[in-house]
Amino acid sequence: MVNTPIASDAREFLASCRAPVDTELDHLIPRETDEPTRVHAAIRWSVFAGGKRFRPALLLAVGQTFGASNAHLIRTACALEMIHTYSLIHDDLPSMDDDELRRGRATCHVKFDEATAILAGDALQALAFQTIAEDENLDAALRIQLISEITRAAGTPHGMVAGQALDLAAESREVTGEELERIHQHKTGALIRAAARCGAMIAGANENELAAITEYATNLGLLFQITDDLLDVTATAADLGKTPGKDARARKATFPSLYGLQASRERVNVVHQRTFETLASVSHPVELLTSIADFIRDRQA
Amino acid sequence: MVNTPIASDAREFLASCRAPVDTELDHLIPRETDEPTRVHAAIRWSVFAGGKRFRPALLLAVGQTFGASNAHLIRTACALEMIHTYSLIHDDLPSMDDDELRRGRATCHVKFDEATAILAGDALQALAFQTIAEDENLDAALRIQLISEITRAAGTPHGMVAGQALDLAAESREVTGEELERIHQHKTGALIRAAARCGAMIAGANENELAAITEYATNLGLLFQITDDLLDVTATAADLGKTPGKDARARKATFPSLYGLQASRERVNVVHQRTFETLASVSHPVELLTSIADFIRDRQA
Repeated sequence: MVNTPIASDAREFLASCRAPVDTELDHLIPRETDEPTRVHAAIRWSVFAGGKRFRPALLLAVGQTFGASNAHLIRTACALEMIHTYSLIHDDLPSMDDDELRRGRATCHVKFDEATAILAGDALQALAFQTIAEDENLDAALRIQLISEITRAAGTPHGMVAGQALDLAAESREVTGEELERIHQHKTGALIRAAARCGAMIAGANENELAAITEYATNLGLLFQITDDLLDVTATAADLGKTPGKDARARKATFPSLYGLQASRERVNVVHQRTFETLASVSHPVELLTSIADFIRDRQA
Repeated sequence: MVNTPIASDAREFLASCRAPVDTELDHLIPRETDEPTRVHAAIRWSVFAGGKRFRPALLLAVGQTFGASNAHLIRTACALEMIHTYSLIHDDLPSMDDDELRRGRATCHVKFDEATAILAGDALQALAFQTIAEDENLDAALRIQLISEITRAAGTPHGMVAGQALDLAAESREVTGEELERIHQHKTGALIRAAARCGAMIAGANENELAAITEYATNLGLLFQITDDLLDVTATAADLGKTPGKDARARKATFPSLYGLQASRERVNVVHQRTFETLASVSHPVELLTSIADFIRDRQA
């Protein structure tokens, strides 16, 4: 992969990330002709399901902003996508969110079976950390930092698993807006923040820059979640590639259900504005990062 | 923990490992009073269920044999126990082996619920790699080696998840003795081998020593599995702390079902003998390691 001058349009940038990320994922994930074939087929079914590769792209965008080359960024980007995909596979299980459709096609346990889906997720988590541990483009000390960052973002008490657990615990009762934000900060925010931070860490960003990026990504994660909730109300299945209106039917707390559509849309603008402010102190060109925030605000899927 | 002269009796050694391993696990695992409380309670329910701590003890035994101190070994030992426990939680799920009793009490999904059990396992896997990544007693380069070793032993195509997938795929058909060994080498063998190898790696064992320990642990893993299969036929629920006879009812291939009791017992002796031979080239005192092999051969639970 050749490093071209950094793009400033998010849509273009996201599209340009897909092929290199997919090529590297294909290289990293066992073939489905290798034993055990069924679990490898299941992993590939879910990893290559047409995902937007948002987390890898965010890592690449932040890393490039601070001057890192894709050769140094790409494997950690893929590791994050593996963690994200494992979480989708497990979240879709009947005992969790019980989803049959994801990214426009059958979820892993529907296409295969529950046991295989659980194992596919488990294997992806191990492979994610293996990928970073064995990335010879990075210093050992940096690899350790990245693994520490991502394990914390993926696990409990401050990561994705904690978020999913908080979400399940909230299903049976009314939650406040504060609680809802807490759930999302863990469930989706932690990994989005880790993506941005890992990009900055690989690029050798200084402490102030890392703090700014952390703030940026925290707001970006929130923006992502509010727009996700809005899309669940307003979009069609064809747009989303998954069943819309599911949150309301599940009586799940969402930003629109707590605050209404109008207030949620205003919230989008406030949070979007904040992503800009957090980048003010960064002396590198931040056009791509602000464009990504625009893209999330305006997304239709 | 003070390093005393290395023990040579396995039973004594295993017993002596339990308290320091449990103390360190208690320190590493989030409190069940911390949010999300249910998933933390589930993790603790399964981790502190009276397990034998065999994998941590094996790591400590090999590490001490090659001169490492417990301070350098203990966290990786705990990480292995986390991986082992996560695999038990997931293997016990209804869609996998559907077990209700483990180590003498309700399995995680029975005590809590399926979703919580899945999340508890997922969190334990992340915490295992976080524990090694953040172990400041070890050089970064060594931590990376350990994480690479354990991710491979835990995942697919050569690790524990692959073994569980091969096992599930074998349930619906007859398997040969060779296939059965292959399943076990992945499902339980890989992590036992990783335990021994990590101990040797932390102690700075040379390549020949590491090769000898790898052979030793491969045979020890096989010994462990054959005796496990035999105990499923011959032991009582009180001895095992789990339901015996389950393999036969599930028409699962086991060493006794393939070769008969007598031949399986002879096999135990052959494999046990091999563990001795593999240690012949090691110039450190190997009495503890041979005593562990004796202990596995003779175990009643």
